[in-house]
Amino acid sequence: MTQPARPLDTVLSALAPVFGDRLSTTQAVRDQHTALESWLPPDAPDAVVMVRSTEEVAEVLKLCNAHGVPVVPFGAGSSMEGQVNAPQGGISLDLSGMDKVLSVNAEDMDCTVQCGVIRQRLNEDLRASGLFFPVDLGAHATLGGMAATRASGTTTVRYGSMRELVLGLTVVLPDGRIVRTGGRARKSAAGYDLTHLFVGAEGTLGVITELTLRLAGIPEATSTLMCSFDNIGAATAAVVTALQFGLCLNRIELADAVQMAAINAHGGSTLPEAPTLWIELAGSAATVDHDADVLRDLVQDAGATGMEQAKNAEAAAALWRIRHSALYASRALRPGIKGLSTDVCVPVSALPACIEGITEVVRSTSIQAPLIGHVGDGNFHMVLLFDPEDPNETAEARHINSKLIELALSLGGTSTGEHGVGLGKKGYMAAEHGTALDLMRDLKRCIDPANIMNPGKIFDL
Amino acid sequence: MTQPARPLDTVLSALAPVFGDRLSTTQAVRDQHTALESWLPPDAPDAVVMVRSTEEVAEVLKLCNAHGVPVVPFGAGSSMEGQVNAPQGGISLDLSGMDKVLSVNAEDMDCTVQCGVIRQRLNEDLRASGLFFPVDLGAHATLGGMAATRASGTTTVRYGSMRELVLGLTVVLPDGRIVRTGGRARKSAAGYDLTHLFVGAEGTLGVITELTLRLAGIPEATSTLMCSFDNIGAATAAVVTALQFGLCLNRIELADAVQMAAINAHGGSTLPEAPTLWIELAGSAATVDHDADVLRDLVQDAGATGMEQAKNAEAAAALWRIRHSALYASRALRPGIKGLSTDVCVPVSALPACIEGITEVVRSTSIQAPLIGHVGDGNFHMVLLFDPEDPNETAEARHINSKLIELALSLGGTSTGEHGVGLGKKGYMAAEHGTALDLMRDLKRCIDPANIMNPGKIFDL
Repeated sequence: MTQPARPLDTVLSALAPVFGDRLSTTQAVRDQHTALESWLPPDAPDAVVMVRSTEEVAEVLKLCNAHGVPVVPFGAGSSMEGQVNAPQGGISLDLSGMDKVLSVNAEDMDCTVQCGVIRQRLNEDLRASGLFFPVDLGAHATLGGMAATRASGTTTVRYGSMRELVLGLTVVLPDGRIVRTGGRARKSAAGYDLTHLFVGAEGTLGVITELTLRLAGIPEATSTLMCSFDNIGAATAAVVTALQFGLCLNRIELADAVQMAAINAHGGSTLPEAPTLWIELAGSAATVDHDADVLRDLVQDAGATGMEQAKNAEAAAALWRIRHSALYASRALRPGIKGLSTDVCVPVSALPACIEGITEVVRSTSIQAPLIGHVGDGNFHMVLLFDPEDPNETAEARHINSKLIELALSLGGTSTGEHGVGLGKKGYMAAEHGTALDLMRDLKRCIDPANIMNPGKIFDL
Repeated sequence: MTQPARPLDTVLSALAPVFGDRLSTTQAVRDQHTALESWLPPDAPDAVVMVRSTEEVAEVLKLCNAHGVPVVPFGAGSSMEGQVNAPQGGISLDLSGMDKVLSVNAEDMDCTVQCGVIRQRLNEDLRASGLFFPVDLGAHATLGGMAATRASGTTTVRYGSMRELVLGLTVVLPDGRIVRTGGRARKSAAGYDLTHLFVGAEGTLGVITELTLRLAGIPEATSTLMCSFDNIGAATAAVVTALQFGLCLNRIELADAVQMAAINAHGGSTLPEAPTLWIELAGSAATVDHDADVLRDLVQDAGATGMEQAKNAEAAAALWRIRHSALYASRALRPGIKGLSTDVCVPVSALPACIEGITEVVRSTSIQAPLIGHVGDGNFHMVLLFDPEDPNETAEARHINSKLIELALSLGGTSTGEHGVGLGKKGYMAAEHGTALDLMRDLKRCIDPANIMNPGKIFDL
């Protein structure tokens, strides 16, 4: 008597003749399809299928749904909270080959792309049109993955995040149905907002295969100011005033004293080791000139102790290089250590209470935790440098992260501004959402009754 | 043997001792709780319950859910497509008494209000703070109703619609569970976007009882330009260029020649009877001055045949009074006739094709149809003036509306930019959404299995 075939084997046997060498079960390929950027341990899938079209995605999902085999969508693999891990095994659906820019409508400032397009690639393609796609997160990421995790970046204070910039989607549902949500119109009141249901669902409700995105015009002029303050409260107050004045703010980034010390140690610089803001204005030359004057006065009134205004594009780039060196500088504090990046987001006025509160907690531990943030949105990261082999440090890092989330929630904030939940933050969802988490579970059961889509992410059923 | 009580009677008997004279079944009160602003015939509920708190809403819903009695949420009753009608009878849930502004956070530029707050009231309350809520639709409307229908207005081109400006909600689900969605953080990547599921659901998934809203700073300066063009294509081309230039645009409104003739006839003016734009800039005085110069050059290059620049606030108000007289001027073409307001929204570049296409259809009928639009968003309204007692005119008006929607969908647009679906547009949802409509139905069945929430709106099950 023969054993009945495992569901996975049945699915792979059916896929093999269709996908040929685009179906792989080799250890090396499987190991590449895990969350390599995450602080969480990797968890490889049983197999990897490289798809090239929406129809192929539908074919794989239909089969996996019929046999209860987990499917984990995979783009560039750069998500932070283990979203692309496969803790329940199954198939990693590699979408990186779906990398065509399908259309650019310069007049309407929108474009439609396949999910595997890397955002830097899109911006290279767009350059000649004078347009760009303004979500500029640090990672090498696909636009599909960015939508799935509701990503944002340093210019979100001006342009919004993926939440605001995705106009429409093509999504394959777990049962293989293909739906088109939203469209190219700038607004619509026609029925349920399915687009936003899939943006941020981290692949647990279906697979995003195409996206229609809003674009923006490349601003004529920019101006960058870097300034330091005696304390976080003063820096935050300057940000609040700048936001209320409606200045043409493009980026507002904050580093704390620990972060600035790390930057000095790493780069051999002698910058003030105090809370520091980088503020970029963008718009027409006349507006930028005018607002730069207002901004300088305003940060001075807020008690800026040091101020450097970039005189030209080169000088501005140099100031931003300092900001962008933060992550490397942090990691260099403990070579070989990746660090857990926290990601809370609170109302901007609550930033001082949140940062001061957590700084006290950090001081009571042995952990170094430089802070860098998209402070115009109230979102900041602390890189908690700990050795995962050391149980004491691991406990301390987890303690800080958990205290920080508790504090952010008590201040009206969220556990995650832009990294998403994945495996790393699902323990906090009940505290953050209460009864609303039950509704999320209801929706998941409704759309994915066999629980094949990225199972175990965001919440357990 | 006694007859079993009707479900409605059972519910009313249970509610009577709790609500006293806030429960009414008198004809006069019931007749006030229908869609009086709509082109559709009214349909009164069996009873009206005036609620004062989220908990009371939960109590009513729990009871109605247990007995399968329809519930129709009611705010100011100003929706356009019959959203507050009760074609299946049941209870009209009057939320107008929930009219408290619960908190204003000036530093974070947000506020939390009960659903029954009228938007004009909120702006009066906010005036001293230097802030305002920027969705300025024409109707007398509650913020809860505006969220439920995903409303927008003339400044949506700058600030976005209810979709972009609602940060969080308190919602009562059909089974009486109270959920809080979103929050005060500017962004979050924590789980499914439940806020956007309820914004635009027209009360078919639950009752919105509280809203957290983004506010904006009142701009320092504004500048208004009114200009006319030989044809719609030239006017639209000017709009496209202005949008691409990233000017500080606050409002961009368009009227067609028919509308301008109606305005002249109504107001005794001698304005050019040609496609006309009203463009308002807003920002700092320096920015507005600079951008006004650019704008003037740009509309001239686009072929503007007439141009009037407001020299001061009074002159600007006079130009905007012309714009705001459009609806009255249209209705004055046929006194006593309400008219059906179309509401398609297309990519801005598709406006000339859409408007020219439908103008030909209108010319083949006996219907007058002045056009006014939020052209920066690609959204425009034609008021189809027809006598509902005349079967021929009714058929012509419905033919125009249906041709217009067909045309808009073929151009990548939507059947409704801001009025919603209600009863009036549900026949077009299959053409607009395809398979996605099935997913909407799945969600409805999941959240409201007894189909008590505003049944028969948006789609039939």
